[in-house]
Amino acid sequence: MNDHASRLSALRKRMKSMRVDGVIIPQGDAWQSEHGEACDDLFGYICGLDASAGYVVVTQDEAVVLIDGRYTLTAKEQVDMSLFSIDYYTSIKPEEWAILHLKPGQVLGYDSWLHTKAEAKRMQKACNAAGLILQSTDTNPVGDIWNDRPAPMEQTAISMPLDFAGQSVDEKIKTVCQVIESQCQADSAIISAPDSIAWMLNLRTVEDPRAPGIKGFAIVECASPRVTVFTDVDCAAFDHSQCELFEVDFLPLEELQMAIHHFENVEQTVFVSDQAPDWFTDHLNAPASEVLTGPDPVALLKACKNEVEQDGIRQAHKRDARAMMAVMQWIKTTQHLTEQQVADRLNEERSIQNLFRGISFYPIVGWNANGAKIHGNPTDTVIEGNGFLLIDSGGQYDDGTTDITRTLAIGHPTDEMKEKYTLVLKGHIALASAIFPAGTTGAQLDALARKPLWDAGLDYAHGTGHGVGHFLNVHEGPAGISPRVNEPLHVGMLLSNEPGYYREGAFGIRLENLMLVQKYKGKDEPRNETGRDLLCFETVSFVPFEADCIIEDMLSDKEKAWLYAYNQACQI
Amino acid sequence: MNDHASRLSALRKRMKSMRVDGVIIPQGDAWQSEHGEACDDLFGYICGLDASAGYVVVTQDEAVVLIDGRYTLTAKEQVDMSLFSIDYYTSIKPEEWAILHLKPGQVLGYDSWLHTKAEAKRMQKACNAAGLILQSTDTNPVGDIWNDRPAPMEQTAISMPLDFAGQSVDEKIKTVCQVIESQCQADSAIISAPDSIAWMLNLRTVEDPRAPGIKGFAIVECASPRVTVFTDVDCAAFDHSQCELFEVDFLPLEELQMAIHHFENVEQTVFVSDQAPDWFTDHLNAPASEVLTGPDPVALLKACKNEVEQDGIRQAHKRDARAMMAVMQWIKTTQHLTEQQVADRLNEERSIQNLFRGISFYPIVGWNANGAKIHGNPTDTVIEGNGFLLIDSGGQYDDGTTDITRTLAIGHPTDEMKEKYTLVLKGHIALASAIFPAGTTGAQLDALARKPLWDAGLDYAHGTGHGVGHFLNVHEGPAGISPRVNEPLHVGMLLSNEPGYYREGAFGIRLENLMLVQKYKGKDEPRNETGRDLLCFETVSFVPFEADCIIEDMLSDKEKAWLYAYNQACQI
Repeated sequence: MNDHASRLSALRKRMKSMRVDGVIIPQGDAWQSEHGEACDDLFGYICGLDASAGYVVVTQDEAVVLIDGRYTLTAKEQVDMSLFSIDYYTSIKPEEWAILHLKPGQVLGYDSWLHTKAEAKRMQKACNAAGLILQSTDTNPVGDIWNDRPAPMEQTAISMPLDFAGQSVDEKIKTVCQVIESQCQADSAIISAPDSIAWMLNLRTVEDPRAPGIKGFAIVECASPRVTVFTDVDCAAFDHSQCELFEVDFLPLEELQMAIHHFENVEQTVFVSDQAPDWFTDHLNAPASEVLTGPDPVALLKACKNEVEQDGIRQAHKRDARAMMAVMQWIKTTQHLTEQQVADRLNEERSIQNLFRGISFYPIVGWNANGAKIHGNPTDTVIEGNGFLLIDSGGQYDDGTTDITRTLAIGHPTDEMKEKYTLVLKGHIALASAIFPAGTTGAQLDALARKPLWDAGLDYAHGTGHGVGHFLNVHEGPAGISPRVNEPLHVGMLLSNEPGYYREGAFGIRLENLMLVQKYKGKDEPRNETGRDLLCFETVSFVPFEADCIIEDMLSDKEKAWLYAYNQACQI
Repeated sequence: MNDHASRLSALRKRMKSMRVDGVIIPQGDAWQSEHGEACDDLFGYICGLDASAGYVVVTQDEAVVLIDGRYTLTAKEQVDMSLFSIDYYTSIKPEEWAILHLKPGQVLGYDSWLHTKAEAKRMQKACNAAGLILQSTDTNPVGDIWNDRPAPMEQTAISMPLDFAGQSVDEKIKTVCQVIESQCQADSAIISAPDSIAWMLNLRTVEDPRAPGIKGFAIVECASPRVTVFTDVDCAAFDHSQCELFEVDFLPLEELQMAIHHFENVEQTVFVSDQAPDWFTDHLNAPASEVLTGPDPVALLKACKNEVEQDGIRQAHKRDARAMMAVMQWIKTTQHLTEQQVADRLNEERSIQNLFRGISFYPIVGWNANGAKIHGNPTDTVIEGNGFLLIDSGGQYDDGTTDITRTLAIGHPTDEMKEKYTLVLKGHIALASAIFPAGTTGAQLDALARKPLWDAGLDYAHGTGHGVGHFLNVHEGPAGISPRVNEPLHVGMLLSNEPGYYREGAFGIRLENLMLVQKYKGKDEPRNETGRDLLCFETVSFVPFEADCIIEDMLSDKEKAWLYAYNQACQI
């Protein structure tokens, strides 16, 4: 019997002893992490698939792996089709599959640590309608049968000094409490996002630089005033001198359950972020406390970088640009490189820069056809002949996070390739030079970057920009420049500007800089006639765009002037 | 004692007999109508204010009128400040005011016919937190004391022939049932939007042409299959020959309560539109039926006009353009006209067109400073001297609804006025000529129309476009071209394109055409590389833009070409 057959068989035995007829095992951990740990990959352990999203649903007779379109090919390679059928969670949700494969009255188990409240609510609604009993299990049945489960990574936090953070922990907690009390209308809040906890306490972890947050749960009590963090990260480095108004305590994660009982005896309103595990719903549902949910109260504060953070971001980007330019120069003068060699060199050049902590995400290096895969990994493909090389990479520095994409001409790209490059560049410039009133959302601005492509009947199948943290996650909310993101932009937000164009099997183009939202100061009238401030973007990435990719005749005078000024500014 | 003092005193007496300590009286009727009837203006009866939105909250000791910023001046004129204080519902919600002016344990009454479920839920949550008892009253206490209350308008529906509707009632109900079953996942639905009922049954009312819908509530039972409409509109004209598969019955509105009991004895899932009165929540909350809510299942079907409707819309707009051009010609050749005379003449010229049924909304005619009031009514101001005359008007025809705005040069407008006109026109052209992939939302497109103004540090404080019905409401959902409207655009949707610019105390500019969403057919590749259809707009309004308002040098060659082609197309 192969590994997955025996694991599935052990799981089914465990399900019987748990008295559940089906179970849902989602990909992901209690923090809905973008970069989860090996020990949390219960999904991969049971079905064998290495994916960043998905569900396994198992009954005594059947089992399914629910994926999305990105994993069609990988699933066929990695999943044993004699054990699992494959379907798409974009077409059938896990509870819907369970409803079709179980009978009314049967019990469907789920682990309330691994689902958000909203998802659990949706599952509950569907199960109710179908007469299925949805039941949260005390332990995770896959966890129970995983004998050689790896230990969680041991993490030690470092303290971020005021010179980089720009705001003391006292000031931050005070502002968070104002949001909890006035906007969330609560007495206390449970913060579950690792980057929110890290930002609030001026702490960072460095073991996985892609995710410098503190995995844990923070209880912020505004009246006491007190913050209690339940985490297994060693936070001994916490700088108590930055925190004199509030009591901040760190306790092991396992003590959370006990502490939650505290709320059951207190007459107060508790706010739980809507990204927090559904587990809190059950365990806070005591008669004395009222529980409210909504967006993480820290997210917007964290997104609006203060002056010190902004200055650090500029400095980090200048250092990062030196590394990028060194790599680009090396590529231009070296024959027969592979994509993987370029990826390695990026890391080397960044690592000799001051204040470097690691990469902010695994680099994407795609030569011609490989560049058309939006999330492709570097391969051993040799970069030779004529075409485009797409490089998307970034670093973590003590003073900021970077993320930059350039598309390089190697040899002689075709006129068509240059034409498409120029259309993408026109979109990039339109967004970078936009002036817009306060209150404008990323969904509105998204179209400015697409218009030159739309006009030519083209488009790209991803958002135009995402929020970026300050020595934190390279993808951060709540703002973004994307059709579905309705968060208004505010001064100090750091966002990417990355339109692209992808011709399958041929080549890919993406041009990405990071930009800070700033007040517009270019005119005599800083407010428009609707009484709102005017805003604009300050580009903080400093790597020039290559003249030999651009068809200059396609640029307007304004676009040429922007490009000239930008390339000048890159002479750092 | 004046009228409002005695009314307020009678209301307080009635509140005592009802055993409520406070009441909330919203402006609006059970259909959240844009154009309510006099008999439904309980809000105006009690406080004297003529407003399209607001709340009165009354306790035994105090009373408040909650308004928004548009009514600050009017409220001061119309409301007796010795009886009522004035505040803003944008700052303090009616239940919040009540919580501040009542004690825990006291009872706050509301009429569940006049609030949506979402609003009632919000009020319930706030009252729970404050210990106030929110209670729906059996009758409306203001209705109870209104002795000389006018009778509701008597309305008789006409049937819309297939030549105009393009789809039989059978086909429409069949499609509605598909949506109810597959998308709403329900067995039956309660439709409350008057325009949805009218569209589904190919009926229109003509007594108030601004609102040709059928005020009532339709119960659609998919399994039977049967539609029961509870309405006081005389629907004898209903064309049963268009409906052979479904049983359609019309019953008086007062029989609704009885009929609702039916659902309590049947094991089925009932869908109630989220715009329906909260009343249904209480009355459907029987153990046997499950109640779901969400967007009106008819709205999206109604918004996507079929080929016959589209053709009618084109014809109606050609007739409407003739009326508009006649009025414009008359204005240009006549001295000392007033805004009101222009408004009257618009009605006269439209009324001699074929198939005319009335105006689709009260016209806006604003000379110079009056044009800067976005929703100003025509006055006796004389149009003389130099400047801009803004005219926003529309008609109802058997084959379509029109809505058009032109800004006319009278005498010699300043260069600054022409410059701003040209910026607005550039925005209008950018939107009208946009090509975009299926799935694009109005929020994305909104920025295209604003960009020329944003670039100059300017903006307008309203959406760029709204959906328009087919001989139905001039404002219709679910789509729109506006920062907060995330509905993807679909082929056949009819939308306005109306960027503007308003300088307070000086002049206003708005340029509005209606456009149909169409598949883009201009290139060899009808789909872009993300696999989605390309869409574009077909402008269906046919009134030329005036050369003497435009600074031609500010237009690109493409913009000039669009303008020339458009003005040519207007020679109908």
